[in-house]
Amino acid sequence: MPQPDHISKLGVPDPAGLDEDLRVIWRRCVDKLGFVPNVYSTYSLRPQRLRHFMAMYNEIMLSESGLSKLEREMVAVVVSSANRCYYCLVAHGAAVRALSGDSELGEMMALNYRVARLDRRQRAMLDYAWKLTTTPWLIDDADREALRAAGLYETDISDLTETAAFFNLSNRMASGTDMMPNREYHTTAR
Amino acid sequence: MPQPDHISKLGVPDPAGLDEDLRVIWRRCVDKLGFVPNVYSTYSLRPQRLRHFMAMYNEIMLSESGLSKLEREMVAVVVSSANRCYYCLVAHGAAVRALSGDSELGEMMALNYRVARLDRRQRAMLDYAWKLTTTPWLIDDADREALRAAGLYETDISDLTETAAFFNLSNRMASGTDMMPNREYHTTAR
Amino acid sequence: MPQPDHISKLGVPDPAGLDEDLRVIWRRCVDKLGFVPNVYSTYSLRPQRLRHFMAMYNEIMLSESGLSKLEREMVAVVVSSANRCYYCLVAHGAAVRALSGDSELGEMMALNYRVARLDRRQRAMLDYAWKLTTTPWLIDDADREALRAAGLYETDISDLTETAAFFNLSNRMASGTDMMPNREYHTTAR
Amino acid sequence: MPQPDHISKLGVPDPAGLDEDLRVIWRRCVDKLGFVPNVYSTYSLRPQRLRHFMAMYNEIMLSESGLSKLEREMVAVVVSSANRCYYCLVAHGAAVRALSGDSELGEMMALNYRVARLDRRQRAMLDYAWKLTTTPWLIDDADREALRAAGLYETDISDLTETAAFFNLSNRMASGTDMMPNREYHTTAR
Amino acid sequence: MPQPDHISKLGVPDPAGLDEDLRVIWRRCVDKLGFVPNVYSTYSLRPQRLRHFMAMYNEIMLSESGLSKLEREMVAVVVSSANRCYYCLVAHGAAVRALSGDSELGEMMALNYRVARLDRRQRAMLDYAWKLTTTPWLIDDADREALRAAGLYETDISDLTETAAFFNLSNRMASGTDMMPNREYHTTAR
Amino acid sequence: MPQPDHISKLGVPDPAGLDEDLRVIWRRCVDKLGFVPNVYSTYSLRPQRLRHFMAMYNEIMLSESGLSKLEREMVAVVVSSANRCYYCLVAHGAAVRALSGDSELGEMMALNYRVARLDRRQRAMLDYAWKLTTTPWLIDDADREALRAAGLYETDISDLTETAAFFNLSNRMASGTDMMPNREYHTTAR
Repeated sequence: MPQPDHISKLGVPDPAGLDEDLRVIWRRCVDKLGFVPNVYSTYSLRPQRLRHFMAMYNEIMLSESGLSKLEREMVAVVVSSANRCYYCLVAHGAAVRALSGDSELGEMMALNYRVARLDRRQRAMLDYAWKLTTTPWLIDDADREALRAAGLYETDISDLTETAAFFNLSNRMASGTDMMPNREYHTTAR
Repeated sequence: MPQPDHISKLGVPDPAGLDEDLRVIWRRCVDKLGFVPNVYSTYSLRPQRLRHFMAMYNEIMLSESGLSKLEREMVAVVVSSANRCYYCLVAHGAAVRALSGDSELGEMMALNYRVARLDRRQRAMLDYAWKLTTTPWLIDDADREALRAAGLYETDISDLTETAAFFNLSNRMASGTDMMPNREYHTTAR
Repeated sequence: MPQPDHISKLGVPDPAGLDEDLRVIWRRCVDKLGFVPNVYSTYSLRPQRLRHFMAMYNEIMLSESGLSKLEREMVAVVVSSANRCYYCLVAHGAAVRALSGDSELGEMMALNYRVARLDRRQRAMLDYAWKLTTTPWLIDDADREALRAAGLYETDISDLTETAAFFNLSNRMASGTDMMPNREYHTTAR
Repeated sequence: MPQPDHISKLGVPDPAGLDEDLRVIWRRCVDKLGFVPNVYSTYSLRPQRLRHFMAMYNEIMLSESGLSKLEREMVAVVVSSANRCYYCLVAHGAAVRALSGDSELGEMMALNYRVARLDRRQRAMLDYAWKLTTTPWLIDDADREALRAAGLYETDISDLTETAAFFNLSNRMASGTDMMPNREYHTTAR
Repeated sequence: MPQPDHISKLGVPDPAGLDEDLRVIWRRCVDKLGFVPNVYSTYSLRPQRLRHFMAMYNEIMLSESGLSKLEREMVAVVVSSANRCYYCLVAHGAAVRALSGDSELGEMMALNYRVARLDRRQRAMLDYAWKLTTTPWLIDDADREALRAAGLYETDISDLTETAAFFNLSNRMASGTDMMPNREYHTTAR
Repeated sequence: MPQPDHISKLGVPDPAGLDEDLRVIWRRCVDKLGFVPNVYSTYSLRPQRLRHFMAMYNEIMLSESGLSKLEREMVAVVVSSANRCYYCLVAHGAAVRALSGDSELGEMMALNYRVARLDRRQRAMLDYAWKLTTTPWLIDDADREALRAAGLYETDISDLTETAAFFNLSNRMASGTDMMPNREYHTTAR
């Protein structure tokens, strides 16, 4: 059976019926990426909520931060690996490959980040993201101290925490709707 | 030792230094609630991110939806119970007590929602929120079907999913920063 | 739906039919507390077993010990938190509030004891109680040594162990019978 | 290295120094069993607590009940298997062998009760004991209903619950003290 | 840092020193695949054990069976996903892509097989492989019956069980030695 | 109900119909042990696969290695304890008793190896085997380093890894087929 046959199990509204601001975004995506990410299509069932999601996403992933864009994408993939989120692993695994130019690094983040050769800072960030995802109630001062010892400032720890926290949100939006990633991600930066 | 002695383990900026729009919000909180919620103070370390967080929060918890405000708060507390998030359990437990006028219901949501007497719809929503929080990778068509059978429409399922997903974000912001709830919540609606 | 509508899902005998010694205890409870604790009512289905339970309970919680009464109640609540036992969290959470005069401490013990400011001795005791509850097979010499290093004597370790062990019993009596706490606990020492 | 070299890691008082009533029990044990069970020696560090433990134990395991003595021992072993408690598995595994005359049944209870051929009533009791031990917070009406459907009365369910609950106590006393079983149990009823 | 920098953390013998039969296999691999699979290099630390491993592997994966070669590879990947085994996910993910001609199917097996569109037989096989991997002690008659209902014969169930069991072995050889997959697998059948 | 009533839930072929080489092995087993191990009977459903299993088994358990035969059997039992595999616990528990001459050691390995008095090397091996069995994805350099520090050479670590890995295979063959051990093991070396 060919994979997959849907975008979201909750259905996707006709994009022609969306407000102009969203249709502009849809067109820009097609211009820039060649497609509209399925997370937008899925979320457009509730347009105002989509706007907030996009605003938060762009701030976390694209704005100025002590974490590089690659580091943020690595966090995204490791959180999604802990949550076994198919959509986010495919979409952000592609981003790790594209940003690092190292296709194996993307696979390692998705499958078991502990096998990767990482510097101390990156390893500390990913260990923290994994723990914050799987047992957030066990995070304590020692975890924050380990991040500081690896060179992170307080705002970096805040950004790291929010990045990991955000993908705990988006992973669950994807799992709750059985959201399928656009096919294009699979071949990106292989 | 008196409890607690901090708001966030990452430190809190002086509110006097915040942009005017945030200071307006701070004042409105004091007017309306008597205090600024510590989640705002914590998040103000990164003001633009706080703005997105508030926008998303308000949409999810306060806008029109097929889920009542009480139902959304019940979901918030059950997710926070699964994640053992002290801040959110205290703050949203207070909201369940206030909205329901049933102080025991708030305790039940925080401690073990399965002991509560709930109608089928509410029980289905909370079972879904628990599963989406603890094992999102196991959510499948049967889970969505159970929600439909309990009377939820597709947009309701989407809102429920986003509400549960959002508290998986906010729980981790709170655990990552060791955020302490304002003392006032403890006595609300007892 | 008002919460709750039962004491025990196995039913509760008419107290008028109990033996005189138990009726005396029932009357004393009413005199002293204003109510008969629902654990007694539940257990009175098997009166001789209730007598043994009360004798053991009183010895563990009220007799002379190297652990203060507050410390024992803190252990009770932390064990009940690990087991998510509604009855014991409500009843012994009230006791922590009453004995400590710190209502937030009671909430912290119930929701996630790791957020509380505790001295080394108390933290060591609660870490041990949590581990003994959730993974008793992993307890080893290092765990006992940590208690000694925090100032506990051998009899203290024995009393701590028995206290934690006892609430692993009572939590399961409560969960097995779906025992509901008396409403009065909710407002104690808020 | 010969196994084992201690009774309890918290030390054992000289039996000659115990009160007369306990020394009588010690002598009766030697007369009847050939030895004093190490649980008594361990617990004699706190003699009054030992008395309550023995009273509760005898009531649960030896008094009149809708559960046969073999069924109670089977529950004891299955609970101890879930908790991987060496002392209780050895001591009560011996009891299952002795009471059933089926040495393989004892091994099955200790190692994985699901491989045993059991009637519906016994299987229902053991499934309940396992769940009450490992995830007590998930016990609900359906679990009690399954016991009733297998022929248990309300008092039977109460006795079953207390039996399983009691071994959750005694398993933790054993693990907390690293209590070693008397060597004699190993050869009982092989 | 480029990924990876080793084959096995236990070191790899010089292939020139291997016995002639193994050197023949090495040459055949180079002829056929373009490289010697790193699992062979790793295992050649103990040549006789490698011979047994290859014999068992070839029988399970390549001999006549009621399970197709693709089905066996799907089982291999799902078991490796449960165990988060980097080597086997990469090597056998490539095999699923190659045998199915569906590159997304390979990703789905590796990341979360439950999102794939599968016929009843395949889904039943993978559910069984996952359960046998993660909680083998819970497998019971109902699990085997589900396989029969999905069309598997007794020998098919035996082959399925052995295939899943075998990857539980090979996953642990890979994790124990931190075995890295040959780079070539990453680009196979994308 | 007498225990057990079957060898394998997938059925066992008539040994008279097996190939001559296997019938020779069957006869040798009867001569040497007094019985044919049920794992052979179970596996004879697929004779060629049985041959590979026996070859691998004999190499791992009986050939020259830096691990003694007793150490290998201890690893076998500890892995089987983690997986709660009835067949392997009974059969290899008997082997530990026979090889060590210490019947309690066998029980300890099966029920909770942490209670045994072991030298540093043995304890390190068993801790590794447990971790490799239950969370193979967390094995890292520190685990291998601990083995080296306890005196193991690289080939020893390889053999230890393969031994633990092999019983993760055989445990699942046994659980998948509900394989029952021969009765004779129960009385071996008590």
